[in-house]
Amino acid sequence: MTSVLNHGNTIEYGKEVLIYFDNRRRFLVKLEQGKKFSSDKGVILIDDVIKRGVGSQVVTTLNARAWILHPLLIDYLEKGIKRVTQVIYPKDLGFIVLMLGIGSGCRVLEAGVGSGNTTMVLAHFVKPQGHVFGYENRKEFIEIAKSNLARVGLDKYVTIKYGDIKKGVDERELDAAIIDMPDPWEALETLYSALKPSAPVAFFIPSMQQLIKLFEAVDEHKGFMDVRAYEVLLREIELSRRAIRPSTHMVGHTGFIFFARKVIKSS
Amino acid sequence: MTSVLNHGNTIEYGKEVLIYFDNRRRFLVKLEQGKKFSSDKGVILIDDVIKRGVGSQVVTTLNARAWILHPLLIDYLEKGIKRVTQVIYPKDLGFIVLMLGIGSGCRVLEAGVGSGNTTMVLAHFVKPQGHVFGYENRKEFIEIAKSNLARVGLDKYVTIKYGDIKKGVDERELDAAIIDMPDPWEALETLYSALKPSAPVAFFIPSMQQLIKLFEAVDEHKGFMDVRAYEVLLREIELSRRAIRPSTHMVGHTGFIFFARKVIKSS
Amino acid sequence: MTSVLNHGNTIEYGKEVLIYFDNRRRFLVKLEQGKKFSSDKGVILIDDVIKRGVGSQVVTTLNARAWILHPLLIDYLEKGIKRVTQVIYPKDLGFIVLMLGIGSGCRVLEAGVGSGNTTMVLAHFVKPQGHVFGYENRKEFIEIAKSNLARVGLDKYVTIKYGDIKKGVDERELDAAIIDMPDPWEALETLYSALKPSAPVAFFIPSMQQLIKLFEAVDEHKGFMDVRAYEVLLREIELSRRAIRPSTHMVGHTGFIFFARKVIKSS
Amino acid sequence: MTSVLNHGNTIEYGKEVLIYFDNRRRFLVKLEQGKKFSSDKGVILIDDVIKRGVGSQVVTTLNARAWILHPLLIDYLEKGIKRVTQVIYPKDLGFIVLMLGIGSGCRVLEAGVGSGNTTMVLAHFVKPQGHVFGYENRKEFIEIAKSNLARVGLDKYVTIKYGDIKKGVDERELDAAIIDMPDPWEALETLYSALKPSAPVAFFIPSMQQLIKLFEAVDEHKGFMDVRAYEVLLREIELSRRAIRPSTHMVGHTGFIFFARKVIKSS
Repeated sequence: MTSVLNHGNTIEYGKEVLIYFDNRRRFLVKLEQGKKFSSDKGVILIDDVIKRGVGSQVVTTLNARAWILHPLLIDYLEKGIKRVTQVIYPKDLGFIVLMLGIGSGCRVLEAGVGSGNTTMVLAHFVKPQGHVFGYENRKEFIEIAKSNLARVGLDKYVTIKYGDIKKGVDERELDAAIIDMPDPWEALETLYSALKPSAPVAFFIPSMQQLIKLFEAVDEHKGFMDVRAYEVLLREIELSRRAIRPSTHMVGHTGFIFFARKVIKSS
Repeated sequence: MTSVLNHGNTIEYGKEVLIYFDNRRRFLVKLEQGKKFSSDKGVILIDDVIKRGVGSQVVTTLNARAWILHPLLIDYLEKGIKRVTQVIYPKDLGFIVLMLGIGSGCRVLEAGVGSGNTTMVLAHFVKPQGHVFGYENRKEFIEIAKSNLARVGLDKYVTIKYGDIKKGVDERELDAAIIDMPDPWEALETLYSALKPSAPVAFFIPSMQQLIKLFEAVDEHKGFMDVRAYEVLLREIELSRRAIRPSTHMVGHTGFIFFARKVIKSS
Repeated sequence: MTSVLNHGNTIEYGKEVLIYFDNRRRFLVKLEQGKKFSSDKGVILIDDVIKRGVGSQVVTTLNARAWILHPLLIDYLEKGIKRVTQVIYPKDLGFIVLMLGIGSGCRVLEAGVGSGNTTMVLAHFVKPQGHVFGYENRKEFIEIAKSNLARVGLDKYVTIKYGDIKKGVDERELDAAIIDMPDPWEALETLYSALKPSAPVAFFIPSMQQLIKLFEAVDEHKGFMDVRAYEVLLREIELSRRAIRPSTHMVGHTGFIFFARKVIKSS
Repeated sequence: MTSVLNHGNTIEYGKEVLIYFDNRRRFLVKLEQGKKFSSDKGVILIDDVIKRGVGSQVVTTLNARAWILHPLLIDYLEKGIKRVTQVIYPKDLGFIVLMLGIGSGCRVLEAGVGSGNTTMVLAHFVKPQGHVFGYENRKEFIEIAKSNLARVGLDKYVTIKYGDIKKGVDERELDAAIIDMPDPWEALETLYSALKPSAPVAFFIPSMQQLIKLFEAVDEHKGFMDVRAYEVLLREIELSRRAIRPSTHMVGHTGFIFFARKVIKSS
């Protein structure tokens, strides 16, 4: 497997590392021979990073200490993705992946791809034997998403297509779908055709008006059952010797997550 | 792959299906020739379930309609696990798996295994090339956990050992760890030995006293960095044509999730 | 002032006290000469309660210790109200009272009264110079509400009327209003007539469909500005020497609170 | 009563109004003859405000529309207080006032006063017959608090003293107390002396370490019972014709609220 997210313990020129100073200063850095990495904490020589290796400490020219970490999926979600659109947050993605039962070998539909943030998560979990089929109707995002996926070595598990899933998709017998679009009620017939019987779908829905409209459309369609909706709230806890407490600022809402499973419409 | 969680679309005698009436009436049912499934909604003939197939509707003797669904991971977490201990909830597990970057091929440490609820999730995500090494110091739970894992065909990806990780583990160079025990601060040295440099660990921590004690121990140990803690709150939304609204009752707290990554202690 | 909620420090026959054993065993008890109070913790003689006085400890026949407390408003909300309808919770009432700026001297409209739970809170805060005008269109609740208010000595600050505010109210130039009814959008014209210019109103709204409908009606009416909506979530923290942690069970939703202030419609 | 928070419906020179454009543009403005009020929405003549009156619309020189509102307590909490310290938020204050049963006639202890934000709320609810005794050990804040209280006409219900309540207070037989200080466990003996038997106290506690320490001190003191702790979370809902949804940003934590009631220590 050549995904960079393999928890490897060697690093080499051409790869990326996470240079970690503290929870606010964490940088994804490409290892290029003879280059330097600079921040407000001072300069680090990349050759020095290579010499020391993963998990080690490096000291900057300003005598600050940093650690060399192997990047995880979350580092790319937090720091590595060039974001051109609103993305689904990790708190929601983890729950969606678990609820859909996505795992190695799954064939998954995604709409819309945007900058490839969700796509990266899906590809990570379906590899090495599954595949993600992503649709995006804003042409300018497709190259950005592909480049984000290539950066982490996950592009081989993904096919991104230019198009609007409301007009149908090419795939059939898919294992699951994730839909993040403004008018998902228009895509129900496409989903019904593309999914295996019993396969689950998750819709990401920002507003109450959309939630009501989607529920009513699914309720009338009759091709989906086990309908549920949730909100995931994530609270960060600040850690210090003096005071451990939930953070003052919190993301109060991203979206509602609406789940359903395809059933065969009785005729 | 022979995990039952493969989103297959055929069913056969000997396997399980989810018989779904409504969000409260959902049953994991083993398909045995000539048998019947009974509930307050009436009786369903198992042979009839086989004949109709996944995604189809069946009608009970009381004229109630149910749907035949292929079980997902979440169905086993919600309905299929014989729970002998407090378990980590899906809302927390999805976030932990994402934050640790667990994926196919990972070698993961788990302590303690309990009834195998978390183990099942880990095995699902590391298959087919990874492995879960679970430790449990209460002998009576080990067979229960093994049986729960065998039921879903995930036992081959798991080794469960009888023992207390505070005294050390056999494995080295592991990719990640999940620790759910009352005194995790006693296991830091074991974790430091077992994990690869840079590998992440998640601790599940019910109380504030434990959170403070763990933070202080990690802070003093110097072998772990990128320390963060979170709480995940899940709010279910009730869906109906008349009233869509968050559920009156909610799980207000399960535990704090504490993350860290191993770094090489400077000598 | 004769409200029992006056934080007095004497007790006498005929009044009520809170007998407190622990957070689950707390009882509002009327002090009747020669009577006994019994619970699973044993028997307490009422004459003994009188003799000891507020703040003292009493010991039951089973040698359990209880404390004699002067009842507070919250004790009546939690324990003392005969509830015949869904009530607005303390977490919401405290916020509403603060946001509306209700205080001594205010003249406040309430619809509907139900069992008088909210009415009691309003009367407590407007006394001794203000007044609550409550409307209730279910005749059977009116006597219950009156009796609940008389019990705490707040009935003199309240007038309860049988009627539906959608058809108008008698009062004019009111300082504030609290509306808890299924179709509050039908009451906007009544509210516009009854409130002083600039006076605030709070609507308690359980579902998303109602919230949307109310917002659209207020938006079209043009007689209300400074429109805001909130949800208040209350998390109880369990306290013990061994483990301090948020409670496992929590009320996840009661209702949305929608605020607006009357402005003069331009003609 | 001369508090400006009396929901009056006349305005006059020398008083303040709230000039409301939209939820972000709301200004407390003193009405001074011949003066102008300017914002990015244009200029309003104060004489024109007086002429039109409370609840009316005014049009700016840039043709923007604003409404003239009588300020409520919440407007001073949100906009009118010169804040020199961290304050307790309205979501917490409403709940505290309700739980303590504060109402007209109560005699309440407050420590520390800071800029007088909480003091203003307490004075509003105890007027006209109650009184707030506020202690502040940072001399420079006392004049600020007094000036904030005088601005709304509530200064006559408050006595602010320079001092540290850990060394005792002059008052006895108080009805309630609100304590917002870093080391409240040092003030238990003072509170025990100052409160009536059975009288309630609320402590505002930012961190987990403080919560644990306070609980242990109260548990050992034996002079306080009915101990409870809560967190209040407030979620704002954004309202628009296109999308009603909880706000993206939310205050995730202000503090824990810890309640207890004084009981007579058995000797």
